Amino acid sequence: MTDPSRLTATEAARAIAAGRLSTSELMEACLARAAAREPAVRAFIHLDPGQARRNAARARPGPLSGIPVGVKDVLDTADMPTAYGSPIWAGHRPRGDAAAVAAARAAGGVVMGKTVTTEFATRHPGATANPHNVAHTPGGSSSGSAAAVADFMLPIAFGTQTAGSIVRPAAYCGVVGFKPSYGTFHRGGMKVCSESLDTIGLMARSLADCALAMGAMTGRDYPDPEAKRDRPPRLLLSLGQAPEAAAPETVALLHRAADAARKAGAEVVEAPLPAALAEAAELHPYLMNMETRQGLAWEYAEARAQISPVLLDRLDWAGGFPPAKLGEARRAAMAARAAFLDWTAGFDAVLTPSAPGEAPQGLGHTGEATFNLLWTLLYGPNVTIPAGTGPAGLPLGVQLVGRIAKDPALIATARWLQAALDG
Amino acid sequence: MTDPSRLTATEAARAIAAGRLSTSELMEACLARAAAREPAVRAFIHLDPGQARRNAARARPGPLSGIPVGVKDVLDTADMPTAYGSPIWAGHRPRGDAAAVAAARAAGGVVMGKTVTTEFATRHPGATANPHNVAHTPGGSSSGSAAAVADFMLPIAFGTQTAGSIVRPAAYCGVVGFKPSYGTFHRGGMKVCSESLDTIGLMARSLADCALAMGAMTGRDYPDPEAKRDRPPRLLLSLGQAPEAAAPETVALLHRAADAARKAGAEVVEAPLPAALAEAAELHPYLMNMETRQGLAWEYAEARAQISPVLLDRLDWAGGFPPAKLGEARRAAMAARAAFLDWTAGFDAVLTPSAPGEAPQGLGHTGEATFNLLWTLLYGPNVTIPAGTGPAGLPLGVQLVGRIAKDPALIATARWLQAALDG
Repeated sequence: MTDPSRLTATEAARAIAAGRLSTSELMEACLARAAAREPAVRAFIHLDPGQARRNAARARPGPLSGIPVGVKDVLDTADMPTAYGSPIWAGHRPRGDAAAVAAARAAGGVVMGKTVTTEFATRHPGATANPHNVAHTPGGSSSGSAAAVADFMLPIAFGTQTAGSIVRPAAYCGVVGFKPSYGTFHRGGMKVCSESLDTIGLMARSLADCALAMGAMTGRDYPDPEAKRDRPPRLLLSLGQAPEAAAPETVALLHRAADAARKAGAEVVEAPLPAALAEAAELHPYLMNMETRQGLAWEYAEARAQISPVLLDRLDWAGGFPPAKLGEARRAAMAARAAFLDWTAGFDAVLTPSAPGEAPQGLGHTGEATFNLLWTLLYGPNVTIPAGTGPAGLPLGVQLVGRIAKDPALIATARWLQAALDG
Repeated sequence: MTDPSRLTATEAARAIAAGRLSTSELMEACLARAAAREPAVRAFIHLDPGQARRNAARARPGPLSGIPVGVKDVLDTADMPTAYGSPIWAGHRPRGDAAAVAAARAAGGVVMGKTVTTEFATRHPGATANPHNVAHTPGGSSSGSAAAVADFMLPIAFGTQTAGSIVRPAAYCGVVGFKPSYGTFHRGGMKVCSESLDTIGLMARSLADCALAMGAMTGRDYPDPEAKRDRPPRLLLSLGQAPEAAAPETVALLHRAADAARKAGAEVVEAPLPAALAEAAELHPYLMNMETRQGLAWEYAEARAQISPVLLDRLDWAGGFPPAKLGEARRAAMAARAAFLDWTAGFDAVLTPSAPGEAPQGLGHTGEATFNLLWTLLYGPNVTIPAGTGPAGLPLGVQLVGRIAKDPALIATARWLQAALDG
């Protein structure tokens, strides 16, 4: 029998439902894998095997019944400490679960542990290494979730994205990363920094797992992404607002993906980015950092010495602009959302890079969100799928960006593209 | 010398700055007033005089230096328990301050105590009574903030609004209530129920205090609302989507306000409500309750027996609709926001009732948000000013609704209208 830790969530759920696998066997396999790999990978900030076993033993019925779930440590858990990646919150024990965590448990999901986040899901990294090469970053801010899923410690994990914090680490670690439409998961019990941008999403090892988990937790109908489409997709091809930031292997991969899609019957149109989108991308840092400055007002006032220099620098930078600048950024983002709907009318998705290239060497920096920040602020779903490796042998991904609320359709389009790439 | 508890924040700040009043004298006066009135009014859920004195003694410099501030108990405070109006959270001690509370303290404000909220800022009331007649509700959900400000226990207090939770209690208690544009205050550390609607705002006894506190806490320029305007305002007159819900005294007041405004030189145009606004108002309950159902997922799963029957009924109702209904409500709200901007182009504000009539008798029900929910979902600023009394001798208010981000201008327009009504 396959090591249960190798199963996708979909496979495991099926095996559990059929009585071929027990919840406890699955958890033991994941714990064994974590025990073997954690010394090198450090995906978890909190992992108590006894507690994980107890949670597995009381898994509720539901579509995710018995499936281990990793929870990024910016989401509150009633039974585990939650420190938001900051020493200021070390040892914090929330009374309740975050709304998204409660949704996972209600669907049968088993919270296995808390995964490493960068400091408040911003830039200062945690200790996690890339499981494909531990000298490289896993990306961030959802570092531990991407690494744990990639390294078979668990099949599903929560991430959050403000600029590129789901898509980039997923691409760097070679897994599927899904940022749903803004507002899909309620952010109650999340340490929200940028109210206009922060979005809760998922890491998984397959698009089917993404669809399973999203459907289970949101109650929305996510059709099986393996189902045959009634027509091939129509895709816009774009390198976004900073095409020069793409490494050669990224550009090559994007064109390979476009060619494969065309060969499989898709229409792929290379289109210049509308000016409103480029303008909004320029203002993303103001939106993100000025809101984060507000959101961390207590930490800034009471515990400044425990904020990392890199974050403090960003907060001080943000504090130097008048509130009108934030208003300008919000208006630009709204205008860009409307322009995006015009631009993508009649298309299923934008095909675009997931990251500049492979995961950079070193654990001191989680890489750049150049190919993510614009799509995040447009509020539609973003998904990255693994697509080969780069010159250092590390994973690459390609990204599809959808129209707001068209989340199930985007996952189906991504599955279609994945098949085209494999074919 | 006047009892310092009778001073507005503006007057008190001026007296403190001039050395005519000490922070400690002001706090003692507020504490004495609270001690005298709390047995009847019950505005506070937490008030520890020793702690209030200590907070006053360490007030920071700033535009609110030494001004006592009430904090609605849906906002976290690092130094006071925070229970969100629910027995599920009884005795909860947050580690940090909510972002808005931190902003108040950074501006010099002194957190005096926590004010009563209805359960999770929804319908089930706390113990607060209307200070004008303790047999009547103060309104809700910001019950304690409205009552404490109205009864001179403190000059400024935070409220929050999802449907009518600032404007209605302010009108019932005869104070100024100000719901700023959506997104003005960061909601970090607030128990957010409806992410699309919940908005933090203020209660005060004057529009000048509103401007002072808003400017101090947001860094935005709020010109002195006493300053002479360059022209009288242009107002739209509307009874909203349910005109039949207005009591005769409310209709009479609205027309008296319109007449006074016209006499003082304003243009006042009675205009039918655009259909998109009426449609959005119909969907407000879905938006509010479906999001609240998500936000309270942990409480619903783990502590259902401690949720009030009235809230549980709303949560179960909301759970009966597919997620598509929430999407429909969000789209309708977006469309209404655009329609509102068209409708109000060239106007300074909509003049409309603050509440159906006077505060209803009894403490079991905080009244209806009929005249508030539409304006809340349009995201612009809403302000209510006290305007006489009704047949039972209780306060009435009139409301002005502004265009998004035009918050300082709306306060100035409200001050102009107040002068016209007085004149």
